[in-house]
Amino acid sequence: MAKMKLLYSPASPYARKVRAVAVHAGLLKNIDLVMAPLSPIAPNAEVDARNPVGKVPTLSADGMNLFDSAVICEYLDSKSRKPKLYPAKGKARWTALRLHAMGDGLLDAALLWRYENTLRPEALRWSDWSAGQMKKIVGVLDRLEKEAASLAGRATIGSLTVGCALGYLDFRFADFDWRKGRPKLAKWWAKFGELPAMAETRPTA
Amino acid sequence: MAKMKLLYSPASPYARKVRAVAVHAGLLKNIDLVMAPLSPIAPNAEVDARNPVGKVPTLSADGMNLFDSAVICEYLDSKSRKPKLYPAKGKARWTALRLHAMGDGLLDAALLWRYENTLRPEALRWSDWSAGQMKKIVGVLDRLEKEAASLAGRATIGSLTVGCALGYLDFRFADFDWRKGRPKLAKWWAKFGELPAMAETRPTA
Repeated sequence: MAKMKLLYSPASPYARKVRAVAVHAGLLKNIDLVMAPLSPIAPNAEVDARNPVGKVPTLSADGMNLFDSAVICEYLDSKSRKPKLYPAKGKARWTALRLHAMGDGLLDAALLWRYENTLRPEALRWSDWSAGQMKKIVGVLDRLEKEAASLAGRATIGSLTVGCALGYLDFRFADFDWRKGRPKLAKWWAKFGELPAMAETRPTA
Repeated sequence: MAKMKLLYSPASPYARKVRAVAVHAGLLKNIDLVMAPLSPIAPNAEVDARNPVGKVPTLSADGMNLFDSAVICEYLDSKSRKPKLYPAKGKARWTALRLHAMGDGLLDAALLWRYENTLRPEALRWSDWSAGQMKKIVGVLDRLEKEAASLAGRATIGSLTVGCALGYLDFRFADFDWRKGRPKLAKWWAKFGELPAMAETRPTA
């Protein structure tokens, strides 16, 4: 297999998702990992040349520049000879994709909260906006606690994305005790987080 | 087929994507459309009960509450007996999903730009943030102009999403002449926009 190139950042939860899929698929050895620091107000020329949305992760493979993380994950899974993370069809597929959407939805809100409260000049911060994003984070966590049973069993793109989301809260929202009142989710993550796909991709600043 | 229920807003480009897929798939008659007004700072209880991310579109079907728009589109396409919008595999699939990601990437940036400049109190607006989002919009448009050939041929989830993105610019960014310097994209959209999936789903305030 020709070498692939992944533009990423070690703190990005979306890039972690891709790295986790690569570990699961046994494809990490085929990927050159290239750090590409950026933010919504500080673009990265190498990323922009490959991905007009200007975000990591961006994967160059097979003559294509692929993004966003959902597309890259599905692409890598399609090249994998390991058990597939994307169920082919039926209820199993919708369950996995819905969990994926919950994980990404939590992450989208968490990133916007952080941009608001760390990147934006202090005088321009809007508490209503932060509260709106936090409500989404809490809403997803509460729903995941109720549906914790759907996370059990063989890893899917859904459970893996939820793992990246919870790992991001541990990394960037350490003061926010998401485990409180959510024992099933906490128990699931304590074990799931030890899988190689998760353990080998922990975020760093 | 049991009746489905779609929570939507007539202005939402992501909900338009779902409605367009439903028109293309011949499934609109099987869907109850229910308006659910909301914003990032004004949640909607009916949406929150079905989708913890608190966004439209949200589809209730077959005992499931499905989100986000990508999941709903794929679900409806799987139920369709019309030509599929999601190519099954190979280069055609990656081309379609990559165009989908470009359309959604443009829309994500356009929505954030609008929240910044219409929803947020004027004293709290940050020009660097707006400029960063506008750079993504322009970047995607320029890339689409270069790759206009990939939009040709039978409709896919990719071309349909790009259509929703351009339609959103016409709707909400009327002063921003995106057609200027992008004749191929403008020509493609002039024709594609007349397809029933697009013509029957034009946004309204």
